[in-house]
Amino acid sequence: MTHENDSDTLARDETSDMIASDKVEGTTVYNQSGDRLGTVKHFMVGKRDGKVRYAVMSFGGFLGMGNRYYPLPWNALTYDDRQGGYVVNLTRDQIEQAPSYEDGQEPTYDRSYGQRVYGYYGFAY
Amino acid sequence: MTHENDSDTLARDETSDMIASDKVEGTTVYNQSGDRLGTVKHFMVGKRDGKVRYAVMSFGGFLGMGNRYYPLPWNALTYDDRQGGYVVNLTRDQIEQAPSYEDGQEPTYDRSYGQRVYGYYGFAY
Repeated sequence: MTHENDSDTLARDETSDMIASDKVEGTTVYNQSGDRLGTVKHFMVGKRDGKVRYAVMSFGGFLGMGNRYYPLPWNALTYDDRQGGYVVNLTRDQIEQAPSYEDGQEPTYDRSYGQRVYGYYGFAY
Repeated sequence: MTHENDSDTLARDETSDMIASDKVEGTTVYNQSGDRLGTVKHFMVGKRDGKVRYAVMSFGGFLGMGNRYYPLPWNALTYDDRQGGYVVNLTRDQIEQAPSYEDGQEPTYDRSYGQRVYGYYGFAY
């Protein structure tokens, strides 16, 4: 990364339709009431088909300790231009019970895990 | 499907089918003869459909100055497990003549630009 000028980084790397993968990290995730649920850690992308399968959201944690990560099906997220972030139609309770992992304990993103995560949120993997 | 149960970062963030967006940067791009052409700067992802449209490749430059960036259609790249990088069926000449931009002069990734880039490489946008 060579970008130094924060003030126009967004404008240069993002258009209304497209986002740079290295700008995804840190994007805020809201619920439908506009409450901030967390931020996107990264996307998980299928190497061969180029489809984003998950947006991995972090929330919780204190002073950077105890972060948990919640892989969400891509289809569960809607990008909202007005808020400049992703919106999910999920309650905080639904997310807290969802499949998640701690720092350094990333899951194996195989088919079985995909079915578990997508199934939890009511999507077909 | 197998998962390399190594303890390094790659193994934690990458499986055989999926790659983390924040691990894409720096992935090597080869031609079909195995020559190294450059590295991936980032992906450009459609915000709404979650499709990776471009892998933006950097090559050239000297001591970090004068880098040029080449947006490639996602379909022009094949991930090669053996080399641990992307392979494109393109000559160096083809790439050097291709649509590109300099640091800080990112294009607007609109439909017209998409048609120009995809068209250059013989893909439909």
